[in-house]
Amino acid sequence: MAHLDLGVDEREHPGIQGLIRFRPETGGPLTALAEVLLHAPHPTLSAGERELIAAYVSGLNDCGFCRASHSATAAAQLPAGESLVEQVRANPETAPIDGRLRALLRIAAAVQRGGRAVTAELVEAARAEGATDLELHDTVLIAAAFCMFNRYVDGLGAFTPEDPEAYRRAAGFLVRHGYLAG
Amino acid sequence: MAHLDLGVDEREHPGIQGLIRFRPETGGPLTALAEVLLHAPHPTLSAGERELIAAYVSGLNDCGFCRASHSATAAAQLPAGESLVEQVRANPETAPIDGRLRALLRIAAAVQRGGRAVTAELVEAARAEGATDLELHDTVLIAAAFCMFNRYVDGLGAFTPEDPEAYRRAAGFLVRHGYLAG
Repeated sequence: MAHLDLGVDEREHPGIQGLIRFRPETGGPLTALAEVLLHAPHPTLSAGERELIAAYVSGLNDCGFCRASHSATAAAQLPAGESLVEQVRANPETAPIDGRLRALLRIAAAVQRGGRAVTAELVEAARAEGATDLELHDTVLIAAAFCMFNRYVDGLGAFTPEDPEAYRRAAGFLVRHGYLAG
Repeated sequence: MAHLDLGVDEREHPGIQGLIRFRPETGGPLTALAEVLLHAPHPTLSAGERELIAAYVSGLNDCGFCRASHSATAAAQLPAGESLVEQVRANPETAPIDGRLRALLRIAAAVQRGGRAVTAELVEAARAEGATDLELHDTVLIAAAFCMFNRYVDGLGAFTPEDPEAYRRAAGFLVRHGYLAG
């Protein structure tokens, strides 16, 4: 149960969904941000890669709802599916991903610790693997945004379903319709 | 200097301002979120109180730009001005604020550590001081949002002016025109 009475059935609108309905004035910008960062077309980072960064950071922040939600949405859009997401969340250093994505995940982990942990060396290492300015920007902002979303959901004690199938169903909807359609 | 070439004069557009110009697709939702949380009319939390929460969390995250920027904007809108902001940033437990705002700042500090640090006891203590559901929600989201903004600004190494007068001038503009006018 949430710390607040959200005025909705939390089992029907779990996690951040109930919070967005409680305060639509902030829900609008929050869903618009998620849409641009995770679902809108991107010149070089696939939606699956961006969801993977979100899932990874949510795991580092130990946010059960966001971790399960974005793991499912990443898996639904990556050729290697759930197995790859689990390997990345367990250890990006040994997961079967390319050097550019591994370097971006190192930056995301630094952002999770704190903005000042992102060093010029981490940025240069990602560039050496082919990362673009837009990829660097979006990786930092996705990781930073999930330091917000994770705290928002857990800070208000929002309901977190336990059934993995609930997250797979929601992921199917998100992949097709994006974050603005909820 | 930022980790990226933002394509703008960073001295003219310091901190998050250059980042918003670099990526207007994300800049739109980010400024819309700041406007609702910090500047739009609120039934019970003054703009000065909301900016004070933002300044306090930015100090906890050691983000020089956001701390100076929101301290100046809080000071410009609170009767006790810069002196009160400094006392709150130094120690909210001894600063001359009411019990409700002190309880909300304790929740903001918990959010900064992590969402799960917000306990039912902290929430109940704030309610006992008169905090409403909307105040609790907005305090958690302001604190969470600054865990994003702080990481975004420092994670990309954005330029941070040193002259306090630059922040006072910017604060005067923000108080009059809000976050959407930049």
